[in-house]
Amino acid sequence: AKEKQIAVLPGDGIGPEIVDEAVKVLKRVARMFGYSFTFQYGLIGGAALDETGQPLPEETLHMSQKADAVLLGAVGGPKWDDNPGDLRPEKALLGIRKALQLYANLRPAAPHEQLIHNSTLKEETVRGVDLIVVRELTGGLYFGEKKRERTEDGEVAVDTLVYHEHEIERIVRKAFEIARLRRKRVTSVDKANVLESSRLWRSVVERVAPDYPDVTLEHMLVDNCAMQLVRRPASFDVIVTENMFGDILSDEAAILTGSIGMLPSASLGDGNIGLYEPVHGSAPDIAGQGIANPIATVLSVAMMMKYSFGDEEAARAIEQAVHKVLDAGYRTADLAGDEHTTLTTAEYGDKIVDML
Amino acid sequence: AKEKQIAVLPGDGIGPEIVDEAVKVLKRVARMFGYSFTFQYGLIGGAALDETGQPLPEETLHMSQKADAVLLGAVGGPKWDDNPGDLRPEKALLGIRKALQLYANLRPAAPHEQLIHNSTLKEETVRGVDLIVVRELTGGLYFGEKKRERTEDGEVAVDTLVYHEHEIERIVRKAFEIARLRRKRVTSVDKANVLESSRLWRSVVERVAPDYPDVTLEHMLVDNCAMQLVRRPASFDVIVTENMFGDILSDEAAILTGSIGMLPSASLGDGNIGLYEPVHGSAPDIAGQGIANPIATVLSVAMMMKYSFGDEEAARAIEQAVHKVLDAGYRTADLAGDEHTTLTTAEYGDKIVDML
Ligand SMILES: CC(C)[C@H](C(=O)O)[C@@H](O)C(=O)O
Ligand SMILES: CC(C)[C@H](C(=O)O)[C@@H](O)C(=O)O
Repeated sequence: AKEKQIAVLPGDGIGPEIVDEAVKVLKRVARMFGYSFTFQYGLIGGAALDETGQPLPEETLHMSQKADAVLLGAVGGPKWDDNPGDLRPEKALLGIRKALQLYANLRPAAPHEQLIHNSTLKEETVRGVDLIVVRELTGGLYFGEKKRERTEDGEVAVDTLVYHEHEIERIVRKAFEIARLRRKRVTSVDKANVLESSRLWRSVVERVAPDYPDVTLEHMLVDNCAMQLVRRPASFDVIVTENMFGDILSDEAAILTGSIGMLPSASLGDGNIGLYEPVHGSAPDIAGQGIANPIATVLSVAMMMKYSFGDEEAARAIEQAVHKVLDAGYRTADLAGDEHTTLTTAEYGDKIVDML
Repeated sequence: AKEKQIAVLPGDGIGPEIVDEAVKVLKRVARMFGYSFTFQYGLIGGAALDETGQPLPEETLHMSQKADAVLLGAVGGPKWDDNPGDLRPEKALLGIRKALQLYANLRPAAPHEQLIHNSTLKEETVRGVDLIVVRELTGGLYFGEKKRERTEDGEVAVDTLVYHEHEIERIVRKAFEIARLRRKRVTSVDKANVLESSRLWRSVVERVAPDYPDVTLEHMLVDNCAMQLVRRPASFDVIVTENMFGDILSDEAAILTGSIGMLPSASLGDGNIGLYEPVHGSAPDIAGQGIANPIATVLSVAMMMKYSFGDEEAARAIEQAVHKVLDAGYRTADLAGDEHTTLTTAEYGDKIVDML
């Protein structure tokens, strides 16, 4: 059997519940596709703060570094909202991204046919949307030098947006490679009419593009991209952009599908290591009730099979199982209409396992 | 008569055509409301580059500084697209904003009832949208120090996001004051979980807010705002944010109304000086054909009456004239359906003047 170590970091809110279902699915996948998974559980976010005083304990970091893949639930909640910057649950996300050098955040956005009506966009605009935002995740304003100073003239705050050529090159190559497996279109998003870092970004993209002659490249300014995502989302294939623009655009792209509660994500580095988590948050309001929707986490595990274990077949099997459960009219409470059968989180996980 | 000097900067593409119609409207407004306007024309953008080698000639700047208000058409076009950074038409926009200290960019976004069907969002989501983005315009990444360096390790580029307390305070106060004249809700958008400048921003907002006890304040992270604009745009009243976030969010807000070709903008400083321009661009593809839609520019002139000349009545008269022309079924070519009467740019301006 193919042996893999998976670090499981349930986190806060509904995190533990949805992660349980994803682990269930992984166990079934192991039997079907000949894997032997070892699951090691670690603390992260608010849960880690409560136990250890740190959002990302050393132990969690070490375990994740040694693992073949990391499965994350969600972090954050009102309990820790007033914590100072360094003791906030989200710090753990930034910390683990940087420590594991997970520089490529992949956020596919495609509507589930059965949920298209949930979009605020017209059906004809949403149908056919199938894009992926490839966001740079370890550079830019997120990790540049920060400063706050008191001057005669009041306070001043500074953030620094830094990009190195090699940081741009690796994410751009990742985007082109992903495009090759898709519709072969890359939209590189920047603000080259204003930012020096965007001008460097654009020149690196131009230098790298000839290595992928089969992929069509366009440059787009970030303000225009924010518009075109609303206007003609189906025209995008792969969008590649720097960290902050990617944060904004990937959330915009996710919401317009109407399926945001169902969307997975992967954060990849060089080699096979990857961190997989749902796009949605920790939903503290419904935590512990057993009613959370586990689909985004289960689909994140499909991304794990594909990107960390190179197993497209297992990935597809999971995706198809999810679609079948949806087709059969099963829903968790968040999505259930009169015509649906409402299941608990655990029942939903079982159904997906059954369909596999 | 109230004497006012208006600097008119037609710019590129359809700029001259649409500005002509706005001037027509101003002339009529002058007679109706007792103004004496002097119009001084200046070069800007590509037109200025061609004549003087500079996108923002000193003369244009001086004239604008002495004027009571500035009317701008649009800048840019393919002819100058490959110019180096400092010789690009858009540089003129950044230059004039900074020189005139136009720190508050006001971008109202509301659908015209007759154009709601143009939105890619569902009618029930768009109807009732009536928001204004108040964007900081002279600080942040746009004007911070920039640097590009060659290192052993390849090139590095740096942009700097700087905000001074007083820069934040003046734009935030502007937003609260605007909210007082509207539905009394301010959404302050930042990325306080990551940026030091956003944490300063938030603390200034908190300090200033008690001076406006009649206004409801909420803070929202920029990624969440990009989502909520798509999900429930009608819930926003005044959105206030820093320069780059404002660039992105104001374009997103504009497109979702379906009326982007009709939206005006104002860029204000202290005192009464203001620069007024349509949100849309220079549309080089249809320039010179007399078919451009002048509505956004005419509505920009309504904002001029309101914000630079403090004349709400004249502003409302212009807005109502535009609505009447739309109600009567007149359209420019971009918006004409079978049921409409298609007018040229000049005819459209005349119609608006007639309705006044
Ligand atoms: C929680 C926050 C720091 C984080 C980010 O901005 O990267 C989140 O919004 C995300 O996109 O994963
Ligand atoms: C042309 C560009 C520099 C400008 C900006 O980013 O401010 C434009 O997008 C705008 O919003 O007025």
